[in-house]
Amino acid sequence: MNKVSVELGDRRYPIYIGDKLLAQNDLLVSLLNGRQVMVVTNTTVGPLYLDKIVTQLKDFDTLVIELEDGEQYKTLDTVNSIFGSLLEHRFSRNSTLIALGGGVVGDITGFAAACYQRGIHFVQIPTTLLAQVDSSVGGKTGVNHPLGKNMIGAFYQPQGVIADTSVLTTLPGREVNAGVAEIIKYGLIYDPGFFEWLEVNLGSLKRYDEQALNHAIQRSCEIKAEIVSADEKEAGLRAILNFGHTFGHAIEAGCGYGRYLHGEAVSIGMCLASELSYRLGLISLQDVTRCIHLLKRCGLPVTIPEQLSTDDYLRLMAVDKKNMNGEIRVIVLNSIGRACLPQPIDPALLGKTIDEYAACRAS
Amino acid sequence: MNKVSVELGDRRYPIYIGDKLLAQNDLLVSLLNGRQVMVVTNTTVGPLYLDKIVTQLKDFDTLVIELEDGEQYKTLDTVNSIFGSLLEHRFSRNSTLIALGGGVVGDITGFAAACYQRGIHFVQIPTTLLAQVDSSVGGKTGVNHPLGKNMIGAFYQPQGVIADTSVLTTLPGREVNAGVAEIIKYGLIYDPGFFEWLEVNLGSLKRYDEQALNHAIQRSCEIKAEIVSADEKEAGLRAILNFGHTFGHAIEAGCGYGRYLHGEAVSIGMCLASELSYRLGLISLQDVTRCIHLLKRCGLPVTIPEQLSTDDYLRLMAVDKKNMNGEIRVIVLNSIGRACLPQPIDPALLGKTIDEYAACRAS
Repeated sequence: MNKVSVELGDRRYPIYIGDKLLAQNDLLVSLLNGRQVMVVTNTTVGPLYLDKIVTQLKDFDTLVIELEDGEQYKTLDTVNSIFGSLLEHRFSRNSTLIALGGGVVGDITGFAAACYQRGIHFVQIPTTLLAQVDSSVGGKTGVNHPLGKNMIGAFYQPQGVIADTSVLTTLPGREVNAGVAEIIKYGLIYDPGFFEWLEVNLGSLKRYDEQALNHAIQRSCEIKAEIVSADEKEAGLRAILNFGHTFGHAIEAGCGYGRYLHGEAVSIGMCLASELSYRLGLISLQDVTRCIHLLKRCGLPVTIPEQLSTDDYLRLMAVDKKNMNGEIRVIVLNSIGRACLPQPIDPALLGKTIDEYAACRAS
Repeated sequence: MNKVSVELGDRRYPIYIGDKLLAQNDLLVSLLNGRQVMVVTNTTVGPLYLDKIVTQLKDFDTLVIELEDGEQYKTLDTVNSIFGSLLEHRFSRNSTLIALGGGVVGDITGFAAACYQRGIHFVQIPTTLLAQVDSSVGGKTGVNHPLGKNMIGAFYQPQGVIADTSVLTTLPGREVNAGVAEIIKYGLIYDPGFFEWLEVNLGSLKRYDEQALNHAIQRSCEIKAEIVSADEKEAGLRAILNFGHTFGHAIEAGCGYGRYLHGEAVSIGMCLASELSYRLGLISLQDVTRCIHLLKRCGLPVTIPEQLSTDDYLRLMAVDKKNMNGEIRVIVLNSIGRACLPQPIDPALLGKTIDEYAACRAS
């Protein structure tokens, strides 16, 4: 078992990474507060792992909520239904929520924990690769609004994260790929050596080689933990974690939540953000190709959806959280392994980048 | 103009107290962030003071939302309608919400600011005495749930508070009294000298004597700021601010939000909590009488509503946020001017206290 610490003073917490961690009884119990525990999961993950968790909680008053599976349920209504259950069962401020599932379950549960009685404890048990390397770490919680993704939420840190790599073997290949998209992102924005390692070891990773998987997850968590510790509330540096996401969120919202997995939309978004970096004179065409090529080898989408017009992108990107005073801001690369802070981008250049990427690249 | 500082490290903020502060252009503008500003008010306060505020904002992109007036609108739906407006008008993370109104407007607006894009700036302009001395200070924000008051929310501090005492002259007498209830609370829980001052100066206060009013507001804000600085997230000491509130919330919820003003319910609650303190052997019967007498002189209700049974109280008090592991916890007094931390109370004693108070006191 490996341990990565997210250093946030008195809100410091551990991420445990390893094989079969869900079977380690003491690990989960050590992170709980009070006697009342609610496990939030969904109809896909529940049947697979809920038993393992509930068995460990025999000394607690345990309540389980099984949500429908899907990004379309990441709404204020779902959070409100959790509040209703907590209140019906008289959960006190001295209780713990456990998020057992992927990013959607984690975001919803974390936000419910942040707001219930102005904040109760919560623990993340991410069951997708994407959640293990990204959404469960760093305290971003929240839900979508019909007018924009993740627009309602809180910065709220868990008591700890348990990333059991053995759960990944039950994950559909498409979801594993979506997780690898975020792993590639860490290389692109922060660590050129890690990007090169991924170029060499992608095959082992795709074969679920345990050593490769553990290294990729641990290095991703380390990078995210380092960035979050330096800038918890995204006053500056943390924004680079959004590389590919401004385009990606527009694709998810524009095509309807659910058509693309988050990591898939981010994959296309990283291609567009790399193309934009090239058009700003920051990276070479060869670097753009390296980025597209690695994502493609991974089985991730790199071509942009035909149904969205350039105007759709501009309209959807205009509601991104990084924007200031009406300008659209995007994270671009200075080189492979080094991202720039959000830059205001001329809408005409954005439009041109999207149009010409659609016409020329990724064919 | 007086200034009280709420000392919370890098989230430290000023409370400005004084006559005609809304006419001081520079004060409000100094607390704003970015170019986009939304003023949230209600249909009662808007017509009185909105012009004064909007005039000061001519250099900003200003949006106004006028909510219906009343505690019954303090819901997640109302907060969601604010999110909708902010998103429609593309408000960025770099914008400010201004709460212009009483406690309900402040709680809703603060919670919306806490959650919109995971947190934007906000400024409190409390226009009731109760909001000036209590709800606008200390960062408790939130909304009600059908199953409990203030059960959904966040600890989220404003950039500053502007308490213009001249607005109190347009306030109905009943609302002024409700504010005095919280002022009396500060004396009861924290400062015996201030309680005595109130016994002597209640007449001046009720006549809106400027000096008396300023002193009462400033001393109340100082006490609250001191308690909040010591324990922002209510791990311990801060809970004493809930003196009278456990009973009070039960009365508000049981009689339907809107029948009693919050301060009125707290007045009855403080009588019951004093009675309970006496029955626990902590204070004398004479102290109970002093408490009831001062509240009564103020024109506040001190008799308990007939429609609620003892069982109603026990059921409603069981969902209070201070409770732990199923026990009901109440703040009681050690003496006038000194509250105890929350105590688990035997339900039988609670029931007896309520029954006998109804039968014997406050007649």
